[in-house]
Amino acid sequence: MRAVVLLSGGLDSCVSACIARKVYKNITALTFIYGQKHEREVESARKISQYLGIEEHRIVTIDPSLFVSALVSQNEMIPEKKLNEIGKEIPPTYVPARNIIFLAYALAIAESKDADAIFIGANALDYSGYPDCRPEFIEAFQRVADIGTKRGVEGRHIKIESPLINMTKKEIIEKGVEIKAPFHLTWSCYRGKVKACGACESCLLRLKGFMDAGYLDPLPYEKYPEWYNPKDLVPLPFLS
Amino acid sequence: MRAVVLLSGGLDSCVSACIARKVYKNITALTFIYGQKHEREVESARKISQYLGIEEHRIVTIDPSLFVSALVSQNEMIPEKKLNEIGKEIPPTYVPARNIIFLAYALAIAESKDADAIFIGANALDYSGYPDCRPEFIEAFQRVADIGTKRGVEGRHIKIESPLINMTKKEIIEKGVEIKAPFHLTWSCYRGKVKACGACESCLLRLKGFMDAGYLDPLPYEKYPEWYNPKDLVPLPFLS
Repeated sequence: MRAVVLLSGGLDSCVSACIARKVYKNITALTFIYGQKHEREVESARKISQYLGIEEHRIVTIDPSLFVSALVSQNEMIPEKKLNEIGKEIPPTYVPARNIIFLAYALAIAESKDADAIFIGANALDYSGYPDCRPEFIEAFQRVADIGTKRGVEGRHIKIESPLINMTKKEIIEKGVEIKAPFHLTWSCYRGKVKACGACESCLLRLKGFMDAGYLDPLPYEKYPEWYNPKDLVPLPFLS
Repeated sequence: MRAVVLLSGGLDSCVSACIARKVYKNITALTFIYGQKHEREVESARKISQYLGIEEHRIVTIDPSLFVSALVSQNEMIPEKKLNEIGKEIPPTYVPARNIIFLAYALAIAESKDADAIFIGANALDYSGYPDCRPEFIEAFQRVADIGTKRGVEGRHIKIESPLINMTKKEIIEKGVEIKAPFHLTWSCYRGKVKACGACESCLLRLKGFMDAGYLDPLPYEKYPEWYNPKDLVPLPFLS
């Protein structure tokens, strides 16, 4: 049994990959370089893939000039956020059709390798408000996969698995702790510097999740938001 | 008003591009190099794009090793076909998730450039039986575009236009004659040699269409099938 796992190198895709690993013996991990400011997440994806003993890791490059997005542009800054602002509207870090392209590639690989599932770490509770992370999007793409591929027409569905779709960030971290996800290898900060910034939407959602779950985020931060106090939190049990 | 036009360089995408040109002032044509044996179609796409005065033509390269397909493999031959065999089952020239990837890229460009439509020359009558050429596939992808993009969520749909979807090849050629499509610049043969082979499914569907419409196909062929007699046909009116 084979699965294709979308592995950005972030926290969610890491937990999603660990969940896939429990069930699928053969995994193709799939990571994209598309001009993202935090391209260092790709190195995280490599490390996670190695850590999990994934036998094939494909890295696909997409021309960044296709996308108009603050996450890709060299001119537009990653905005500093407040927690209560996140998810209320689609932010400038939205990358047009990103997950559609990622899933399309995953589908081509899955069908070519006769894999039965595609894993994506999308979730729609503590998230940035990206439309291509919502359950209705996953359902719509499942229909495309069922109708638009030979396997689908033959009734041998390739299942789009989004195991985190209805989880809060706290629940994702708790699930990761349960299955010993290598959180120390992940990267989430959109700014992609030496340390995580602690101020972009991705850092805030991540730190809030760790705080709510009661664990210390193992990554180094430039600064913490005022509501995150590392002294109140315990280290991840399987890393200490 | 801007549209993104998928332009393979084949007969159908050429007519689709001409239809788009009638309505849209600004067009981005989009062509893919994915290891197709008939990569010379890309040169046809370039010529069609120039002929139509399309201001932007993007050529995107996709790693051929993603796909298991006779159209991409160096080992597997393009089969010789009989006309009555075509479309009854999905042939080995099927490329997994090809149109899904193509439309995903088109959608990223369309949203980034604030285009209102994407044109695809897919059709499902005189066709090879590819699942991602059928109207139900286009409808399913439209839903992905509506649900999975910022523009879709805002109610400003990006319309997936498939103007040829319910046309026979004869009707496509008649439409092309009506709007003076530069058929002499197109390329359809899967074998991609100096002359079209006249024996692969793509040549057969094309020649049958020209024959039924009563016109001579302007391309050179190695051989014609027994049912195609060039002496019975007239040259394309706008080329003579």
